[in-house]
Amino acid sequence: MLIALFPGDGIGPEIVAQAKRVLDALAIDGLTYEEGLVGGAAYKAVGHPLPPETLDIAKRADAILFGAVGDPDCDSLERHLRPEQAILGLRKELGLFSNLRPAKVFPELAHESALKPEVAGSIDLLIVRETNGDVYFGEKGFRTTADGLREGYDIMSYNEAEVRRIAHAGFQAARARRGKLCSVDKANVLETSQLWRDVVIEVSAEYPDVALTHMYVDNAAMQLVRNPGQFDVIVTGNLFGDILSDQASMCVGSIGMLASATLNGSGQGLYEPIHGSAPDIAGQGKANPLATILSAAMMLRYSLNLSDPADRIEAAVAKALADGARSPDLGGTMNTVEMGDAVLAAL
Amino acid sequence: MLIALFPGDGIGPEIVAQAKRVLDALAIDGLTYEEGLVGGAAYKAVGHPLPPETLDIAKRADAILFGAVGDPDCDSLERHLRPEQAILGLRKELGLFSNLRPAKVFPELAHESALKPEVAGSIDLLIVRETNGDVYFGEKGFRTTADGLREGYDIMSYNEAEVRRIAHAGFQAARARRGKLCSVDKANVLETSQLWRDVVIEVSAEYPDVALTHMYVDNAAMQLVRNPGQFDVIVTGNLFGDILSDQASMCVGSIGMLASATLNGSGQGLYEPIHGSAPDIAGQGKANPLATILSAAMMLRYSLNLSDPADRIEAAVAKALADGARSPDLGGTMNTVEMGDAVLAAL
Ligand SMILES: CC(C)[C@H](C(=O)O)[C@@H](O)C(=O)O
Ligand SMILES: CC(C)[C@H](C(=O)O)[C@@H](O)C(=O)O
Repeated sequence: MLIALFPGDGIGPEIVAQAKRVLDALAIDGLTYEEGLVGGAAYKAVGHPLPPETLDIAKRADAILFGAVGDPDCDSLERHLRPEQAILGLRKELGLFSNLRPAKVFPELAHESALKPEVAGSIDLLIVRETNGDVYFGEKGFRTTADGLREGYDIMSYNEAEVRRIAHAGFQAARARRGKLCSVDKANVLETSQLWRDVVIEVSAEYPDVALTHMYVDNAAMQLVRNPGQFDVIVTGNLFGDILSDQASMCVGSIGMLASATLNGSGQGLYEPIHGSAPDIAGQGKANPLATILSAAMMLRYSLNLSDPADRIEAAVAKALADGARSPDLGGTMNTVEMGDAVLAAL
Repeated sequence: MLIALFPGDGIGPEIVAQAKRVLDALAIDGLTYEEGLVGGAAYKAVGHPLPPETLDIAKRADAILFGAVGDPDCDSLERHLRPEQAILGLRKELGLFSNLRPAKVFPELAHESALKPEVAGSIDLLIVRETNGDVYFGEKGFRTTADGLREGYDIMSYNEAEVRRIAHAGFQAARARRGKLCSVDKANVLETSQLWRDVVIEVSAEYPDVALTHMYVDNAAMQLVRNPGQFDVIVTGNLFGDILSDQASMCVGSIGMLASATLNGSGQGLYEPIHGSAPDIAGQGKANPLATILSAAMMLRYSLNLSDPADRIEAAVAKALADGARSPDLGGTMNTVEMGDAVLAAL
C-alpha cells in the first residue's frame, strides 16, 4: 500500500517527520512511501504549488499524509500559484469531498481551553464538512460594475448530488456515534442552503434511527460556545465547515492536537492536522507533532483498514500526554522531536 | 423627532414595550412615535413581512427601534414572504449598511459565560458588519445543471464603493476606541475577499493612527475563543459578520444583553437586540428586555444625538444588574416587566 508523504510548508516537514517515525516503529508489512512537493515549497522549487509529479503520486496512493501549506512569501502571487491551491487542488482532483474533523478533549488538556473545564470537557463532536463544492469552487473573478467600479465575485452553489453524498456521510457517521445529526446552513437567506436543507431532509428518510436537526450557521457559532456538548455530528458545507471546525477545534484547547481526514468515494483519503503551517515557528522545533501523528492513525483506520495499529497510536498519544509530554502550545517545553520520542516510548 | 417602533414577532412586543417605558420615563422633549407591523406578525395581518405602510414610517423616521422577527409558522412560505425579509428589506431600502455590534462583559455576568471568567472579562470589542451587500443581496435562485440536477446558487460580491464606506466606518470606530482594526476575510479562497482586502488597505492610508491587521475568517472564529481580548474593532462582510458577531455575543455570556445599531450615511439608524424572536418563550414574560433597552440607548446616542439620556439608560442598566436584577437567561427569576421595573427604579 502506497502512502504519499506531502510535508509542505512551515512546520510541515518537522511534524510529518515525527508521524513517519511512529509509522516506521509499527513496522507494518507492505507500506511504501513516496514523498512529494506541495505548497509554497513546491512553488519555490518547481514553480507550481501542486506540480504534476505530486498529483501523480497522490492519484496512485492509497492515502496521503499531509503536513500543512501556507507561506507568507507567496501571498501576493496570482491565486492559482498560491500554496493553498495545493490542498484545494488535491481535494478537487481526487474528489475528496468528505472532510471529517473530530473534536474531543483529552482530559489532561481540558484546562488549556479558554472554555470552562466542564464545558470543554463536554465536547465530543465530529464535523463532517463538504470539501468539493460551495463558494470555494464556483466561478470567481473580478469585473467592473456599470458604474465603472472594481468588483470581486464568487458564485456559491450546491447541486442535489453533492448534497446527497455528504448528507449520507453525515448520517452514517451519526449512526456510528450517538445517533444525532445537526445540519448547519443559512436557509433563511441563501438558496444554496435551502437546496441543502431540502436534500438533507430527503436523505433523512433512509436514516430513521438518526435524529436530525437543522441550525442556522450564526446560531451554530453561538451554540458551539454556549453548549458544545449538545452536538454529536454536524454536517455542513465547505465555507461554514471551515469556520465552525476551526472554532470547535479551539474550544477543546490546543489546535495542535486535532487530526482530520478527507475521503473520496473509493476509500482514498488525505490526512492532515487541522492547524496550519505556522511560519512564525517553522524550523525551530517548537511545533506539536501530535495532530499529525493522530492523522496518521486516522489514515491507518480509514484508508488502509488497519485499525489495530491505529488504536495503538492513539493509545500511545494518550499515554504520552498522561506521562506529561507537553510541547509549548500545551504549556510545556518539549520540542518536536522529544514529543515524537514520547509517543515512541509509549508505543 | 420620529421614532418608528417595530416590535415584530415572538418576544418582540414584550421587550420593545419595556424599552418604550424607559424612553417615556426620560420625558425627552420632542420625541414622537409611530408603530408598524413587521415580520410574521405583518404577514399574518396584511400578507407581507414589510408592508408599504411600515416602510413609509421607516423612511420618515429618524430612528427605528426594532424588536425581532422570525416565526416558525412562516418557515415554509416563499422566501420573499418570510419574516426575515423585514429586516433584510429595511437594511436595503434605507441603505443601512453599517451594523455595529459591541460585545463587552458586564462584570456581574462574567461567570455566565461558557468561557473562563478571565477570558470573558477581557472582551471589549466592536464588530462592524457590512449589511447591504455580499451573498445576502446578490442574484440567487434555483436552476438545473446540465445533468438535470436541482441546484441552488447565490452570487457573492462586493464592489470597491461598498467596501470603502464600511472600511471608513471601521477605521473611524477604531479611532474612537483603542486604535486597532482587524479586517476579517477569506482572501485565500474568495475573490470577493481579495477585493475587500485590497480596498481596506487602500483606505488605511487615510488612517495612519489606526493599526490595521487582516485575519482569515476561520482563524478569527478560533481567535474569538482562544483570546478574544486581542480584538478592538473587527470589520467584516455581511456573512462573516453574521457568524462572528453571534459567536462573540455568546462569549460575553447571555445574548440577552447585547444591543446593536445599523446606520446609513445620513444618520438614520435601526436599533435592535442581537438576539432573535425566541418563539419558544414568547408571551410568557420570560424574555430579558435589557438588550432592547440598551438598543434604545444606542439610538439616542447615534441617531438622535442625545448622549446624556443614553448615558443615563446605560448607567441604570448597570445599576439594576449590580442590584441583582436577573431574568431567567441570567440565572434569575424576574419576568420581563420586573426587569423593566428594575431599570426604571435605577434611572
Ligand atoms: C488553506 C485553506 C484554503 C483551507 C480551507 O479554507 O479549506 C484551510 O483553512 C482548511 O480548513 O483546510
Ligand atoms: C434574521 C437574519 C436574516 C439576520 C441576518 O442574517 O442578518 C440575523 O441573523 C441578523 O444577524 O440580524
